[in-house]
Amino acid sequence: MNKNTFALRPPMGWNSYDYYDTTVNEEQVKKNADYMAARLKPFGWEYVVVDIQWYASRPGTMRDKFQYIPFSHLEMDEYSRLIPDPERFPSSAGGKGFGPLADYIHSLGLKFGIHIMRGIPRQAAHLHMAVLGTDASADQIADAHSICRWNPDMYGVQNTPEGQAYYNSLLELYASWGVDYIKCDDICNTNNQPYSPAYPGDPFAGKEEIAMLAKAIQHCGRPIVLSLSPGPALIQEAWYYEKYANMWRVTDDFWDRWDLLKDMFRRCQIWQNHVSPGCYPDCDMLPMGRIGKGFGQERDSRFTYEEQKTMMTLWCIFGSPLMLGAELTMLDEQTLSLLTNPHILALLPLPARQIRLTEDEAVWTAVNSETGERYLAFFNLSDEERTLSLSWKEFRDSAAQIPDCAPSRLLDLWSGQELPLSGQEISCLLPVHGCAAWKL
Amino acid sequence: MNKNTFALRPPMGWNSYDYYDTTVNEEQVKKNADYMAARLKPFGWEYVVVDIQWYASRPGTMRDKFQYIPFSHLEMDEYSRLIPDPERFPSSAGGKGFGPLADYIHSLGLKFGIHIMRGIPRQAAHLHMAVLGTDASADQIADAHSICRWNPDMYGVQNTPEGQAYYNSLLELYASWGVDYIKCDDICNTNNQPYSPAYPGDPFAGKEEIAMLAKAIQHCGRPIVLSLSPGPALIQEAWYYEKYANMWRVTDDFWDRWDLLKDMFRRCQIWQNHVSPGCYPDCDMLPMGRIGKGFGQERDSRFTYEEQKTMMTLWCIFGSPLMLGAELTMLDEQTLSLLTNPHILALLPLPARQIRLTEDEAVWTAVNSETGERYLAFFNLSDEERTLSLSWKEFRDSAAQIPDCAPSRLLDLWSGQELPLSGQEISCLLPVHGCAAWKL
Amino acid sequence: MNKNTFALRPPMGWNSYDYYDTTVNEEQVKKNADYMAARLKPFGWEYVVVDIQWYASRPGTMRDKFQYIPFSHLEMDEYSRLIPDPERFPSSAGGKGFGPLADYIHSLGLKFGIHIMRGIPRQAAHLHMAVLGTDASADQIADAHSICRWNPDMYGVQNTPEGQAYYNSLLELYASWGVDYIKCDDICNTNNQPYSPAYPGDPFAGKEEIAMLAKAIQHCGRPIVLSLSPGPALIQEAWYYEKYANMWRVTDDFWDRWDLLKDMFRRCQIWQNHVSPGCYPDCDMLPMGRIGKGFGQERDSRFTYEEQKTMMTLWCIFGSPLMLGAELTMLDEQTLSLLTNPHILALLPLPARQIRLTEDEAVWTAVNSETGERYLAFFNLSDEERTLSLSWKEFRDSAAQIPDCAPSRLLDLWSGQELPLSGQEISCLLPVHGCAAWKL
Amino acid sequence: MNKNTFALRPPMGWNSYDYYDTTVNEEQVKKNADYMAARLKPFGWEYVVVDIQWYASRPGTMRDKFQYIPFSHLEMDEYSRLIPDPERFPSSAGGKGFGPLADYIHSLGLKFGIHIMRGIPRQAAHLHMAVLGTDASADQIADAHSICRWNPDMYGVQNTPEGQAYYNSLLELYASWGVDYIKCDDICNTNNQPYSPAYPGDPFAGKEEIAMLAKAIQHCGRPIVLSLSPGPALIQEAWYYEKYANMWRVTDDFWDRWDLLKDMFRRCQIWQNHVSPGCYPDCDMLPMGRIGKGFGQERDSRFTYEEQKTMMTLWCIFGSPLMLGAELTMLDEQTLSLLTNPHILALLPLPARQIRLTEDEAVWTAVNSETGERYLAFFNLSDEERTLSLSWKEFRDSAAQIPDCAPSRLLDLWSGQELPLSGQEISCLLPVHGCAAWKL
Repeated sequence: MNKNTFALRPPMGWNSYDYYDTTVNEEQVKKNADYMAARLKPFGWEYVVVDIQWYASRPGTMRDKFQYIPFSHLEMDEYSRLIPDPERFPSSAGGKGFGPLADYIHSLGLKFGIHIMRGIPRQAAHLHMAVLGTDASADQIADAHSICRWNPDMYGVQNTPEGQAYYNSLLELYASWGVDYIKCDDICNTNNQPYSPAYPGDPFAGKEEIAMLAKAIQHCGRPIVLSLSPGPALIQEAWYYEKYANMWRVTDDFWDRWDLLKDMFRRCQIWQNHVSPGCYPDCDMLPMGRIGKGFGQERDSRFTYEEQKTMMTLWCIFGSPLMLGAELTMLDEQTLSLLTNPHILALLPLPARQIRLTEDEAVWTAVNSETGERYLAFFNLSDEERTLSLSWKEFRDSAAQIPDCAPSRLLDLWSGQELPLSGQEISCLLPVHGCAAWKL
Repeated sequence: MNKNTFALRPPMGWNSYDYYDTTVNEEQVKKNADYMAARLKPFGWEYVVVDIQWYASRPGTMRDKFQYIPFSHLEMDEYSRLIPDPERFPSSAGGKGFGPLADYIHSLGLKFGIHIMRGIPRQAAHLHMAVLGTDASADQIADAHSICRWNPDMYGVQNTPEGQAYYNSLLELYASWGVDYIKCDDICNTNNQPYSPAYPGDPFAGKEEIAMLAKAIQHCGRPIVLSLSPGPALIQEAWYYEKYANMWRVTDDFWDRWDLLKDMFRRCQIWQNHVSPGCYPDCDMLPMGRIGKGFGQERDSRFTYEEQKTMMTLWCIFGSPLMLGAELTMLDEQTLSLLTNPHILALLPLPARQIRLTEDEAVWTAVNSETGERYLAFFNLSDEERTLSLSWKEFRDSAAQIPDCAPSRLLDLWSGQELPLSGQEISCLLPVHGCAAWKL
Repeated sequence: MNKNTFALRPPMGWNSYDYYDTTVNEEQVKKNADYMAARLKPFGWEYVVVDIQWYASRPGTMRDKFQYIPFSHLEMDEYSRLIPDPERFPSSAGGKGFGPLADYIHSLGLKFGIHIMRGIPRQAAHLHMAVLGTDASADQIADAHSICRWNPDMYGVQNTPEGQAYYNSLLELYASWGVDYIKCDDICNTNNQPYSPAYPGDPFAGKEEIAMLAKAIQHCGRPIVLSLSPGPALIQEAWYYEKYANMWRVTDDFWDRWDLLKDMFRRCQIWQNHVSPGCYPDCDMLPMGRIGKGFGQERDSRFTYEEQKTMMTLWCIFGSPLMLGAELTMLDEQTLSLLTNPHILALLPLPARQIRLTEDEAVWTAVNSETGERYLAFFNLSDEERTLSLSWKEFRDSAAQIPDCAPSRLLDLWSGQELPLSGQEISCLLPVHGCAAWKL
Repeated sequence: MNKNTFALRPPMGWNSYDYYDTTVNEEQVKKNADYMAARLKPFGWEYVVVDIQWYASRPGTMRDKFQYIPFSHLEMDEYSRLIPDPERFPSSAGGKGFGPLADYIHSLGLKFGIHIMRGIPRQAAHLHMAVLGTDASADQIADAHSICRWNPDMYGVQNTPEGQAYYNSLLELYASWGVDYIKCDDICNTNNQPYSPAYPGDPFAGKEEIAMLAKAIQHCGRPIVLSLSPGPALIQEAWYYEKYANMWRVTDDFWDRWDLLKDMFRRCQIWQNHVSPGCYPDCDMLPMGRIGKGFGQERDSRFTYEEQKTMMTLWCIFGSPLMLGAELTMLDEQTLSLLTNPHILALLPLPARQIRLTEDEAVWTAVNSETGERYLAFFNLSDEERTLSLSWKEFRDSAAQIPDCAPSRLLDLWSGQELPLSGQEISCLLPVHGCAAWKL
């Protein structure tokens, strides 16, 4: 299997983290899936992803002190593999794992994804538990010196035949459940947070486990999309992510703050040459709609409407995966309209390049190489209303193979309206943090 | 002008540095150009490049202490622009600069290139000399704190309108001479050498001057290829080099040592996704044939014949510019044959990917997207004879769009012979540091 | 000469920088000396120091763009040695240098100091000027790659016999003038400012020139105090400063801001074990009274009266040199009283140790090892009134050889009043940023 | 208790590590103690120290793969405190811990020390075991993110009241056993080894636990010497080590290699100003005599006799603790003579300073401030015979308070012979890596 065929365009879906943190349960996942099937699927949205600590008992009950309670009980099978907490995921009882939930989601015409942490449970190592298909026990494949900086659940797995056997056994289990997508954490950049300053460390310490996971996916025979977290991914290792994974986070956790959104333009700048079918630099989840409940900060997104349009436009023209953070059942119509604009979503698979980035503005272009149609997007990054302009000469100088044109009509992607145009440049007044996007 | 149209395939040529160091003169340049026109031009070789300190008086006369004599006399015009040393380049006398030499080279059907240092001469700043087209003097555009770590000739130029005017005036002069190619030094990585440990510094301190040069080229109106030195270029700034330059060095000075050649595989690995028309990561000059005279170490290349084949094959399949370091008039027939193999040179413009890199071996593949023809190269990086193998399954898994094939014939690129083939893999015994390359 | 005998207690004096920046002239220096002789000398103040660029023409005339005008005219003698600008220092005309001014200051019973930059003038190198007592010229001893990060006047000097001869010739000249104190800049930490991010560099790049200066002082035969700037000095090189110099700055330029003063407690903490006769970590000048004129910010010190007491108490108990930044002729009586308290100044030469440092408070103790008298100082570092306490048990545990005492009387050093005391601890309410100091 | 009174001169003793690695047992400890009492005690040797993993079952049985077997059984009491492995230390059975062994050693007139790792056993945390005197369990005081880079036994302890209670309970237990000396590991520099490159980390991550241990010692009421490992200690934190500990390692593990011994001169250079009663920079154990058995490399020390003299002379004049690594029962007479020279050992408590350090030689001086007697040591660091000289002028210039003397007699410390002397300097021919030491 060539992994680039697993996701021929940037994956679109929903992820439980932004609203539920560690606490999501089966009923909640199903309701979000139902909503997606009913309202979003026609526009390309298809993945339903259960995020972190679905294997933990009573997560979130010490939220003032810990996001992840150290040394707490984790549900495991006899082979050192984590399985769903049966209290929260009742259908998993009796060794069925996520199979029934995956079946339900598949029955809606959607795909099912789960989050995992790099490694093997610490508890399995200290209890010397078994590893399927080997004579080794967990303590013999765990690396007692390889820990996550921000989550206490796991030890890294040694790159040995027995270690590979463990990852193979994991993926066999997930494949048997019907998992379509794995978001593996503590692996893309193992140094992402200032949580434990004692270990600033090598940000690429999970490198070998990326390849081990990729091999385990090949071994299991199911085309499971591999998504790597957290960011920022290391630009100097771009070729490695592109060889083994389908998507990798270019940012630490992204939330509804303008400084983070503005900063994403800088990230897209350096990653713009690294988007291709099966290879997607990932701008992280879209914190739109209703979010934050599991974090004790339930709220409507702090982004303005203009900022949300800017976010959607950037993610789409750049070619990032689109993962909704919102509780879908609470989506308002305005937010829904931002997620279902076919003109904007049409940008998603097209190759694109940045033409300009300054402190105050950004300009991007994309092309449909089959039709030759060209697209332009303007972004106002300043804190004031601002008129952006681009001369056709600068546009032509910016990229090879742009014909010597001065178009006379534009299609405004957000409104769907056609506009007349004349002269040697295009110019547009944009609101604070706002954007415009056109097909030429 | 779109700069990607200035060099639609990796430039091929000759550079004076590896043999002459700082000392080359007009007669020597012409003889090398004559040889190129006679023997190499039919195979695509076309650039003749005069390397560093063509403006210096009596360079090389303190070679035991200095490569670049500090505070020595540099030939300048009235506008703070360096011009050729008339003792070494007699045709430049009377203000003609490199015009006559460029004319001669053009008359041979070749192209002419020169080396420059980033910045404005220190002497011009201390003498308060004029800057063409401005009221400013050199001391007003020089940055007294921006110096090169290894060459004492220049101060960096401030990114101001007057600073840009200086670079514009430089490029106008070079364009008037007929220069086709500029190799700018101390700009790609300003921190490349451990020469002055006092200033390890920001390796991208020349960033703004890269853009200033690119603008000056646009301003002069002549499609001058822009080559940036020294390396290693910063992979995290790849998008920036790709925006402004045509080639950038991915290595510090490359010489005839196996460890450096072996290391180049690692460099090509991380840069493999960054080769495209007009954008060439540069593996540096080919230290083949007769080299080293100006350094007081005149010699035949220390590379074995097998290593030279490996070098040529890697540079070609990767898509690096090819710049000969040898004194051409002393080329032996065997070396010449390595430079004029049409099958190997045909790889140069094709997109390629690494399939495998270990301590002991490397495998690359390239494709001609017009004809669909596929190429394979095997490299033995170990210090012993070694059999390399690739199964057709691994070949197919390595890249999308490879058909499910098990070819029955191969063309050996170095020998030009067709070979029969059978079975599920290709396997080959290679000599120490040797290689093989085929068209499937 | 043992350099530790040149300054048996921390030097006390006045420095022109805080008020005049680069612009001070002879008349101004004399007036400050007159004031010192009249009002401060009886309390131990004795050095009068002319700070940076006394050799520059019209310094300060481009103050909006440059503190130090690049490539401007510097007054030199025929041997590449800077001499005073005769416009500002008329008595220096005719080759007399600072001799007449030094004589005047000596006639007042005071000592004379000057500031120098590490190195040899860049202009001398580019003009190939002579070096006294050698056949070498300035270009041959200058290091074209050794520049200051923030001042454009000099190149570093190579550590060769000819380089040493240059420093010897400098010190001979200064000794002939009657200089008692040299503050050498760009030498203690050559990496102190974020001015030129291109060269973050080795902060100890001036290391060899420290030893060269020390040798030149031994060679000249005059016991000239050697003061090194700027800071922060490198604590890991403490033994080196202690071997060659008399004082070294533990901080970058210190100004009248509470954050800088509060931060000084952390600096004194790490340097507390490094104060001994002839060896003084230097907390920098005291920005009290009238300051800032040359910087275009003439003002009374922004420090409150309590902060000024805190500063004086810390500098004295720690054992820092005391250099006044104020224009002395404008000193108000309250400030004067802070500079002339004999009880506080008596702390200056005594060995001391920190007992406590938290975010909110500091406690120090000193001992007069001849009399056995012990001293205590409390500092309120918080932004609120605060009661500090120290139990006699903690006091005894803090240092060996403290007798098991619970004193019954205290002398308040600032007020000079005796206070009764009882109980197992000492406790005191201090105003915001205030302090108290006692003899037990 | 003032901790500086716990060890008024540098501790001298024996440590089990260099010969036994992790494997020493009770019988072996007692035999070494017997030897010390009989042959070394009269010269000041007094500490007997049991080094790492005395709590581990069958340590050393996987020595080809691990020095410290991960996830193996560690002997603990009910309060999460490690106790001796009863198989190796039979007298500890029945909850007696090291009490009986300490009694035995005390009965010989010697002192008893043990090694500990920073932190609480990982196993105690995963088993949620009790912490004496608190309601907390081990998982609640362990820091799941604080691990040692090279040993898998422990988690760091949080700096909370419950965490402090754990360290207090540890020291109470040790005090009840009669422990006189604790060597705490993974605390002085937590970043000392390149073992786990994933976590280069903050080398001072154990900082708070140093203070917690010091407080626990004060709390237990027994004057237990606190020794911190491993090195290199951070010179910039010197004041902190001096405040809380008695000795701290200035080097990573020191072994019988000349490059390490030569390098120690550089370490002594930077630490020379930091030796005082109760405060000892520690050059690590003396790998003399028979060593290496537990490492599978049993051997006589690879140091030559001259190198061993150089080592002893440097450790003594610098003032390092002296800890023998040799198996004492196998000591040969020549080695014994190096350990029992009263003239050399007399240097140990005297303040000393380095006069010179070059690539080829070192010169140190010490003074007995009570008698005024001065000492000199010469070291030949080159790989050839070499004559070292020191003029009396350089000697006087090197330090204050040296009288203007040119002594006429010397006592050679190693031979005990008096020598006549004349002239303005002292000069001596030294063998390769050899030394000489005199009383003036």
